[in-house]
Amino acid sequence: VVTAHLESALDLAGLFAFAVSGALLGVKQRFDLVGLIVLGEVTALGGGVIRDLVIGATPPAAFEREEYVLVPLAASLLVFFAHGPLERLLAPVLVFDAAGLALYSVAGTAKALAFGLGGVGAVACGVITAVGGGVIRDVVAHETPAVVRQDSTLYAIPAFLAATIVAVAWSLEAYGPGVATAAAAFAFLLRVLALWRGWRAPRPRSRIG
Amino acid sequence: VVTAHLESALDLAGLFAFAVSGALLGVKQRFDLVGLIVLGEVTALGGGVIRDLVIGATPPAAFEREEYVLVPLAASLLVFFAHGPLERLLAPVLVFDAAGLALYSVAGTAKALAFGLGGVGAVACGVITAVGGGVIRDVVAHETPAVVRQDSTLYAIPAFLAATIVAVAWSLEAYGPGVATAAAAFAFLLRVLALWRGWRAPRPRSRIG
Amino acid sequence: VVTAHLESALDLAGLFAFAVSGALLGVKQRFDLVGLIVLGEVTALGGGVIRDLVIGATPPAAFEREEYVLVPLAASLLVFFAHGPLERLLAPVLVFDAAGLALYSVAGTAKALAFGLGGVGAVACGVITAVGGGVIRDVVAHETPAVVRQDSTLYAIPAFLAATIVAVAWSLEAYGPGVATAAAAFAFLLRVLALWRGWRAPRPRSRIG
Repeated sequence: VVTAHLESALDLAGLFAFAVSGALLGVKQRFDLVGLIVLGEVTALGGGVIRDLVIGATPPAAFEREEYVLVPLAASLLVFFAHGPLERLLAPVLVFDAAGLALYSVAGTAKALAFGLGGVGAVACGVITAVGGGVIRDVVAHETPAVVRQDSTLYAIPAFLAATIVAVAWSLEAYGPGVATAAAAFAFLLRVLALWRGWRAPRPRSRIG
Repeated sequence: VVTAHLESALDLAGLFAFAVSGALLGVKQRFDLVGLIVLGEVTALGGGVIRDLVIGATPPAAFEREEYVLVPLAASLLVFFAHGPLERLLAPVLVFDAAGLALYSVAGTAKALAFGLGGVGAVACGVITAVGGGVIRDVVAHETPAVVRQDSTLYAIPAFLAATIVAVAWSLEAYGPGVATAAAAFAFLLRVLALWRGWRAPRPRSRIG
Repeated sequence: VVTAHLESALDLAGLFAFAVSGALLGVKQRFDLVGLIVLGEVTALGGGVIRDLVIGATPPAAFEREEYVLVPLAASLLVFFAHGPLERLLAPVLVFDAAGLALYSVAGTAKALAFGLGGVGAVACGVITAVGGGVIRDVVAHETPAVVRQDSTLYAIPAFLAATIVAVAWSLEAYGPGVATAAAAFAFLLRVLALWRGWRAPRPRSRIG
């Protein structure tokens, strides 16, 4: 029960940050208000909806709990009216996004495990929960998804590591609020460090090299 | 029972118009016959398939009823052989598309409510039913989705308003064929007016302003 | 039981080829290691995941069986370290991809029929299983999907024909390992011939013509 509550709280805490990142991309692409709301909603909810469809938890939480739709709506409206200040606060927005990444990967993995998935499948679900919304955001905004680009700093890897920690702890029957918090904190710090120090994933050797 | 029949009819009536809009985009993008059929099918069926996956109605209606696949196929073949005249009839095609938008938003919301979703989730389902196919169409055609672009006239907003009317009437136990028809007519007229008068959604203030 | 085993084997055999095609596109687009793995996984698993969601087989096989995730992972890592030789072996890769196309269309249709779908819906599922991963690959890589482009050789049509053979044989209660093998061999040969001879789907008449 405690875990279930923690997961709800984790899920909710990431919504706002992801929606802001989606709506800000909408401003950059010169979309209209509908575009900002669409990007805010799909960024915040897309990963979790895919996870819930995969694990068979229909209707997905995003369609069952009103706050899941309303929090990203509020975030998108805030960006619509106040994107100037928000863009000047790009660093805070990236920190919020890192928090969302960390929280979603832990919550997504734990929910998949609770629905009976094995370790590998649950880790895949956790990563999809964390990065899926951003991929849909970039596809809808007609951009190459940030998560696959060479010039992007580590993003999926912190999510993957946190998901792996959760799955291993679960298999050892050691998963609980402490592990969840530690895994999320680890992913958050790794993501923030990657942003700060410009850490990138390895790239394939060039054809010339 | 009457409502169920009405919804079936509404669903079917939108298929042809949406498939034509998809296949015509395929002609514009210089796709081959397969491309036209793919765009016709995903435009006509994409939104409803997402809705059915979300509400847990598997297999989705598009895979259960043969006419759901065959009507868009016929529309795509018609466009393949007769796209010249159809393009000269752009205004009628846009009017048909407006009818599809109106019908899908009402039918999608009603089906979600019938499957037990709450008001906010059902409205989201209705909007997805109405605009989801078009988003998939534009993504597959490698275009920025029309629904988010600043230069597009009101499209999601009529769907949202019709969906809201249906959900409110449902919660008041006043939903029936009359309300369904009125909500669809309202969305249709608003969409046609927006096309005619060039009504657009508000856009974020420019960074310079 | 024999059929079930055959389908498992068919499913598995296509994973590697599709993942290689995905990861090679990642190299071409200059993505990083994460991008190669993402493209490898979605190309190999995307079509089957959509099929399983559609037929209600949740969690999809991709999330239940570890080898479904690990084989594409291994293929993506191989491409990461050895893409130079693999690119010089483009013809073999295309032949492998043709094998994947043939195997997925047969296995996808048979699984949909086994889950109770009708002929038209099962054929649609088979085609989606075969070409869906490639569409997601191209969308994530920010390219126009190969399957809809005029300059691409026959790809969806061999899958459609193999799926139709399976569905017809099923309805005649004549489906078995022999039919499955014949249908897959037919699609494979048609695809390879199309590659070799440059066969393309018909295109709409130009506006000038």
